[in-house]
Amino acid sequence: MAPSTTSSAVSVIRSDVDRELSDFCADHRERLLEIGAELAPAMDALEVMVSHGKRLRPTFAYWGWRGAGGAETDARMVRAAASLEFLQACALVHDDVIDNSDTRRGLPATHKRMAQLHAEQGWSGDSDGFGQGAAILIGDLCLAWSDEMYQGSGFAPETLRDGRAPFDAMRTEVMAGQYLDTLEQVRGTATREAALRVMRYKSAKYTVERPLHLGAALAGRGPELTEVYTDYGIPLGIAFQLRDDLLGVFGDPSTTGKPAGDDLREGKRTLVVAETLARSGDADATRFRALLGDPDLSAASVEWMCALIESSGALAACESLVDEYAERALAALRSPELDGGARGPLGELVVAATRRSH
Amino acid sequence: MAPSTTSSAVSVIRSDVDRELSDFCADHRERLLEIGAELAPAMDALEVMVSHGKRLRPTFAYWGWRGAGGAETDARMVRAAASLEFLQACALVHDDVIDNSDTRRGLPATHKRMAQLHAEQGWSGDSDGFGQGAAILIGDLCLAWSDEMYQGSGFAPETLRDGRAPFDAMRTEVMAGQYLDTLEQVRGTATREAALRVMRYKSAKYTVERPLHLGAALAGRGPELTEVYTDYGIPLGIAFQLRDDLLGVFGDPSTTGKPAGDDLREGKRTLVVAETLARSGDADATRFRALLGDPDLSAASVEWMCALIESSGALAACESLVDEYAERALAALRSPELDGGARGPLGELVVAATRRSH
Repeated sequence: MAPSTTSSAVSVIRSDVDRELSDFCADHRERLLEIGAELAPAMDALEVMVSHGKRLRPTFAYWGWRGAGGAETDARMVRAAASLEFLQACALVHDDVIDNSDTRRGLPATHKRMAQLHAEQGWSGDSDGFGQGAAILIGDLCLAWSDEMYQGSGFAPETLRDGRAPFDAMRTEVMAGQYLDTLEQVRGTATREAALRVMRYKSAKYTVERPLHLGAALAGRGPELTEVYTDYGIPLGIAFQLRDDLLGVFGDPSTTGKPAGDDLREGKRTLVVAETLARSGDADATRFRALLGDPDLSAASVEWMCALIESSGALAACESLVDEYAERALAALRSPELDGGARGPLGELVVAATRRSH
Repeated sequence: MAPSTTSSAVSVIRSDVDRELSDFCADHRERLLEIGAELAPAMDALEVMVSHGKRLRPTFAYWGWRGAGGAETDARMVRAAASLEFLQACALVHDDVIDNSDTRRGLPATHKRMAQLHAEQGWSGDSDGFGQGAAILIGDLCLAWSDEMYQGSGFAPETLRDGRAPFDAMRTEVMAGQYLDTLEQVRGTATREAALRVMRYKSAKYTVERPLHLGAALAGRGPELTEVYTDYGIPLGIAFQLRDDLLGVFGDPSTTGKPAGDDLREGKRTLVVAETLARSGDADATRFRALLGDPDLSAASVEWMCALIESSGALAACESLVDEYAERALAALRSPELDGGARGPLGELVVAATRRSH
């Protein structure tokens, strides 16, 4: 879900967010090591997760603030925005345990990294079990530190209180969305409605809408901008995720960094899958269903599935949905409530997110 | 770690805490079900954990407040105190996943309950994997809701800010303590120092000291009472945990609700174990170490281990440590900083915690 890294709407805040996270981690590493020097490897693992994020949520929080008239440079806003990266780190570390994923951003997933430490040290018991336990605790620390960083961002207590509604909603929604996603996998549901609901909570609200709401609330204009940011954020978030899902199937492995057909092998119940099943004949749909989620899916099977996604009309339908949602997001930016200076960057984020190749 | 339920120092706040938690859950159940009706079983599992707590941390937070001159009845303080139960619910749900425990308080552990749902519904994939994933997310919700409830307790934003230092420290410390505990298990360490450090962070600071600090901070007297509450809380917390560890080995199964020798079978590296190893000859210590953590430990082996704990002098040493720490906690209550009305109940909590049989 990365907009192009050359997007200036993202890069304007990125280095500031990186620095605030790095300062927070340095301070908290010290506190942890006072408790016990043996906590160092856990802190290392945590910092790997926090230092490598794409800063999407901070970017939307920042432009939500700017669109509500917030100042261009404000260290408090940078810290409040950066705090969302700890929430994201928790979500990723825990998701990787839940999905038993081996890697994250080309590096070993946190639980794998900690399992490796266990094996290298020759400790007793099961390395995988230790790795999972350690990753659960590392994710918990990230979640706790997210609101610690938010509350300590430097805004007046009343201002922070105004931001709590989107901040709290964001956490509940991403966890609920992740639970529903897990549920769709085991129930084998693959309807459009189910896929759209997961996208709405796990991606659109969590990644785009709520961070925008947070920025507006911290700028003291939450109520006026709630609707605009929903009208912009939900379609953009869905278009984002849909582009991601298309890249997960058709993306060039050399730019996405993931093997071809990876999402099909993982069995993700995406809207692309739901559209394909809904648009295919019984025989094709049955075969597609049977192949979906097979970890040993052959290249030939991936090719057959991709061909069905295309010939069924699902690919074209999803591509036009991306365009349609992107148009709706852009249209919302016409609102007179929005501070003019933010229109360009917010529009740029739509283009970057929906026309990207990785 | 339960003081007797007849203790009036506990019962004075218990029903109020129960009611606030129940109201919060009713409100948040509604929000979750708006996202998806399928979230109901996850919410049920969460509520089982939250509704059955012993309310230890809220009790100390409340008496920390009273000892700092806080009013006898204050709904804001009840809510802030109750919020600690969500943190504890997260810790328990995640600990049970980490330790792969089957039960909690005589009921199936959260991950077992969710695994059972998966099996009953005939969903695809691994029931245990689903149960663990669901429990990780349910624990995450509890952690997020803990500070949502704290921040929404009704105190003025500035007052809440004053309470953040102990609130934040409590979370970092319990997670760090839990990580060190996990580490001691796999490293097979069983030194007094290691056992005492885990008790300090996972029990004393988390259960007693930080909740007291929180109550004092919310009453506006944090700085004045920090030292008194540390002098009272740390020894009391260690005495609590030591009593718990002794009951885990020597407790009557009919009152503790746990099979005899359960802690020995689980291989917990308690101070009782460390004392026994330090006080035994090489042959006995080697045999004790070999038996410790054997899930199929026979009744005869349990008996032999209990006999060694006694004959080595470890039992007597731990019993006098409990007394010594209890005395130190009681002595701290003489501080003139403490509001007189809280001395009796805080003293009562020492007695209830260290002279209990379950």
